[in-house]
Amino acid sequence: MTDSAIEYARQVGAALQQRQWTIATAESCTGGLLGHLLTEIAGSSAYYQGGVIAYSNEVKQSHLGVPAAILASEGAVSEATARAMAQGVRERIGTTVGVSTTGIAGPGGGTATKPVGLVYMCVATPETMLCRRYVFEGDRQQNKQYTALRALELILAALDQDI
Amino acid sequence: MTDSAIEYARQVGAALQQRQWTIATAESCTGGLLGHLLTEIAGSSAYYQGGVIAYSNEVKQSHLGVPAAILASEGAVSEATARAMAQGVRERIGTTVGVSTTGIAGPGGGTATKPVGLVYMCVATPETMLCRRYVFEGDRQQNKQYTALRALELILAALDQDI
Repeated sequence: MTDSAIEYARQVGAALQQRQWTIATAESCTGGLLGHLLTEIAGSSAYYQGGVIAYSNEVKQSHLGVPAAILASEGAVSEATARAMAQGVRERIGTTVGVSTTGIAGPGGGTATKPVGLVYMCVATPETMLCRRYVFEGDRQQNKQYTALRALELILAALDQDI
Repeated sequence: MTDSAIEYARQVGAALQQRQWTIATAESCTGGLLGHLLTEIAGSSAYYQGGVIAYSNEVKQSHLGVPAAILASEGAVSEATARAMAQGVRERIGTTVGVSTTGIAGPGGGTATKPVGLVYMCVATPETMLCRRYVFEGDRQQNKQYTALRALELILAALDQDI
């Protein structure tokens, strides 16, 4: 699992460098894991500028510009929030690409309509916004790992679309 | 190594909850690993508000308020920068505690005076600012792990001083 993730992180780095593009991360449920994986690659400072770990709703608003109205109507775990996070971090850090994760890692926090394992993620580039919804069935640590791996895959998909 | 880190993260969570304190992370060389470890603990959203991954100097200035003069005179890998990062994230995210890491994970980026493995970290609380300097001798991934583990230890040390 971790080896796959590192290999994806390496591919993301190579694809970004080929385009001379930069990236920033906006993480809620992964809590920093996505940035950690991207920075396992030597030389990643050439394309990874940094990010915001927006664990609380306050930080999603203050540091990523997620509208309070979206958080109130759609909730923190929603595609609308994930879109605002990806676009917000891209604009505020000033990178070519922004990637976001928001979900319910568990074991607490699930509801009938938003179960544990529900995750939204988006990748914003100059040309596209790709979003995905998953419901993972692992434990807390597995759900974080699955989310980060799928987010790395989504970055690769978004970069392919922009060729 | 990871098991030790998770156990430290659990102790940090318990110590924070005992005081009803909150924490935010300001990470350079660890790239999100410290936030990732803190959020491996179920219920960590009660005390972990989020953080800034300040991989570039621009993000250290714009998102953490590290003065350009400090970056120019002391460099990004310095105690002065680590202090400004810890205090900056504490103020900007509005938590009781702020913790920072800045260093040279390697394999590139080392110099005669600032070798690969050199790391500074600080913990800012309402009562104290604790800082440490290390020179780790691992590879990139080990240096990140060592840094995160020592940072968790430093948080525990700072919380003890504040009892």
